[in-house]
Amino acid sequence: MVALLSKLAINSDRLYLSINELAEIGKLDNGGVCRLAFSEADIQARQLVSRWMQEAGMAVRSDAVGNIIGRYAGTKSQAALATGSHIDTVPIGGRYDGCLGVLAGIEVARVLHQSQTRLRHPFEVIVFSDEENSVIGCKAIAGNAPTDPERYRRKDGTDIQTCLQMVGGDWDKLHTAQRDRSEIAAFIELHVEQGGVLEAKNKQIGVVTGIVGQYRYMVRIVGRPNHAGTTPMNMRKDALVAASRLVLAINRLGMETIGDQVATVGHLTVSPNGTNVVPALVNLSIDLRDLSEENLQYLITEIKKEAVAIAANTGTEITFEQKLHVLPTLAKPELMATIADVCKQLDLSYDYLPSRAGHDAQEIGRFTDMAMIFVPSRDGISHSEEEYTSPEQCAQGAEVLLQTLLAIDKSY
Amino acid sequence: MVALLSKLAINSDRLYLSINELAEIGKLDNGGVCRLAFSEADIQARQLVSRWMQEAGMAVRSDAVGNIIGRYAGTKSQAALATGSHIDTVPIGGRYDGCLGVLAGIEVARVLHQSQTRLRHPFEVIVFSDEENSVIGCKAIAGNAPTDPERYRRKDGTDIQTCLQMVGGDWDKLHTAQRDRSEIAAFIELHVEQGGVLEAKNKQIGVVTGIVGQYRYMVRIVGRPNHAGTTPMNMRKDALVAASRLVLAINRLGMETIGDQVATVGHLTVSPNGTNVVPALVNLSIDLRDLSEENLQYLITEIKKEAVAIAANTGTEITFEQKLHVLPTLAKPELMATIADVCKQLDLSYDYLPSRAGHDAQEIGRFTDMAMIFVPSRDGISHSEEEYTSPEQCAQGAEVLLQTLLAIDKSY
Repeated sequence: MVALLSKLAINSDRLYLSINELAEIGKLDNGGVCRLAFSEADIQARQLVSRWMQEAGMAVRSDAVGNIIGRYAGTKSQAALATGSHIDTVPIGGRYDGCLGVLAGIEVARVLHQSQTRLRHPFEVIVFSDEENSVIGCKAIAGNAPTDPERYRRKDGTDIQTCLQMVGGDWDKLHTAQRDRSEIAAFIELHVEQGGVLEAKNKQIGVVTGIVGQYRYMVRIVGRPNHAGTTPMNMRKDALVAASRLVLAINRLGMETIGDQVATVGHLTVSPNGTNVVPALVNLSIDLRDLSEENLQYLITEIKKEAVAIAANTGTEITFEQKLHVLPTLAKPELMATIADVCKQLDLSYDYLPSRAGHDAQEIGRFTDMAMIFVPSRDGISHSEEEYTSPEQCAQGAEVLLQTLLAIDKSY
Repeated sequence: MVALLSKLAINSDRLYLSINELAEIGKLDNGGVCRLAFSEADIQARQLVSRWMQEAGMAVRSDAVGNIIGRYAGTKSQAALATGSHIDTVPIGGRYDGCLGVLAGIEVARVLHQSQTRLRHPFEVIVFSDEENSVIGCKAIAGNAPTDPERYRRKDGTDIQTCLQMVGGDWDKLHTAQRDRSEIAAFIELHVEQGGVLEAKNKQIGVVTGIVGQYRYMVRIVGRPNHAGTTPMNMRKDALVAASRLVLAINRLGMETIGDQVATVGHLTVSPNGTNVVPALVNLSIDLRDLSEENLQYLITEIKKEAVAIAANTGTEITFEQKLHVLPTLAKPELMATIADVCKQLDLSYDYLPSRAGHDAQEIGRFTDMAMIFVPSRDGISHSEEEYTSPEQCAQGAEVLLQTLLAIDKSY
């Protein structure tokens, strides 16, 4: 069990005022926030956050992809303890997704600065570029960003160099953003859950066990486009009947397989899609997520076996094309244990859960020790103006972040 | 068993030459035919067919909806024996659908005219207007045409009066097209099957037992649009999982219910249809067809029961909206028996089958005795340039039509 540095505590009001002030930038009439990466609002928010970092005693720089790195000097180690997240949003986003992690990191720096406390390690707060779209910020730090600039062209046609230059970056120096374990000894990200598990279990803190891997496939089911009136039932090759069986097989495997996986068919189109034509073609997506790569492989193998049987039974042809393969990132067990200990010391209820959404920590965890702290999302809603986490819940998450950093500063 | 008037026989070559000549009008590069109702091609085809009727000794008139009625005078009865079909096509149609019925009727007239034979009954060949779209021709004769002109506006905006005037009709006199049992004692339509039943059973002639009724519903399934990553399987309300169960229930009822029904979900859309969003909304169509109205009612009742159970099980809301209700039209048993007898006399193999596509005979059968004769469609294909029925098969169908008319001329 770790002993808390009980003298230090985050300032709940100051944190929540910062959250509200940041939410004014790009605020929508419905109460949501639109702060797309590289937009005017994003740039304005970056300036505000950079100023707050400086006021908290941090040296602030930005790298070749526009990541903002605030560094609070330590006393001994060269390798930093880092936290951070993002301040860009989806087109209709909320005020907590990403921002809480950045602002709680700055609040930690404020606490250290105000109390004139130095850690052994340098302490960094990183604002990652474009988490909601290209994820270029954390990928560049991990050295995993694709080097084809066309991969990054925005929907409006803007190229990536133009985007990066807006935020002080430079595409041609992409590689200089890469960092390694000798620079970042551990990374801990605080984030809202974006799901309803903590709320349903009535827990205050989520100790994230890892960020799930993801398999995405597109499936093509080819039948025969017969007349729905004149073709007897037993002479049909109905692509939608085959697709329906596959959807149910995927759902059943998702529900019944032992594990924490989710399995979703979110996209499905029928062709020719006429009321009086037996469906000739169905395209559908499969999205599988789990912490266990082994389980993901098992699931897709079972789904493909089901598809073979369904194709034989319905006279259709079913083919799979893999569109995405993201490996899971597991949280460091020692860091998880420290977070859990801190919760006990602070008398906060907690539970372990995987993150089934992607986060910046997923990439950072590919080269150094990673952990995440979740706080509840009301009704599990995010990416919406209805996203909400209470001032008290935000402060609890930030307090756990602070105490965890203080604890691992000794052990790392 | 009827005795054949063995002296009379249709001229196979003459019939097939007529089919090919008519197919030149609106011929497409791929070998198909585009002869939309009220188009230039339709008008040109109407002129050709009218000329052929006159040359076959018929008096030709057209009614208020542009139906062409060729009448070959009889010796005694006022009520006619009638046949006919249509010469309009779908945008990419074949050369047999509709045309065979019209041209076989004209061929019958030619045989009668050439041999100077008079039937007791007047003999009519009717070319019905716009069978492939509004079905206004046969509906007006049956007195069942909707009287709201907006129901008939073409996709290009043309109103129905303009269309009808192109072919000598007049919307304001729609009611004058109506006829009754005292004018048409029996109606027999020859048509290509447009399905694969006769071919699969290796039969030359289909004795149609009736034209199926049709129920069409749109179903709306409302779930909840959760994040496909962060929402555990057991916390979802997945509209597509519910829809898949309903599709399979409909298919199973279609397959397993005792009867000749077909049950099809041809149209299905998913919303928001994103790979990473649990489906929130599915709209799908149900198309049910059977000769038995009682069975259709049973099927929709069972489907609705399944939907209630599926909704309860998946946490979704499922609502049904009826879009179409067409009553079945049964063929007159005495006419079916005569057609079967004729087949035996001609040594043609035959089988009984329902028509699961709509035909002009469906409306005519609502006020007088109706029967239909089917000939095979290669591979069951129609509404396509690949539609094909051989010269021999066309001639066999026309011969059965001729001999059936000669037979019932005595019994009616």
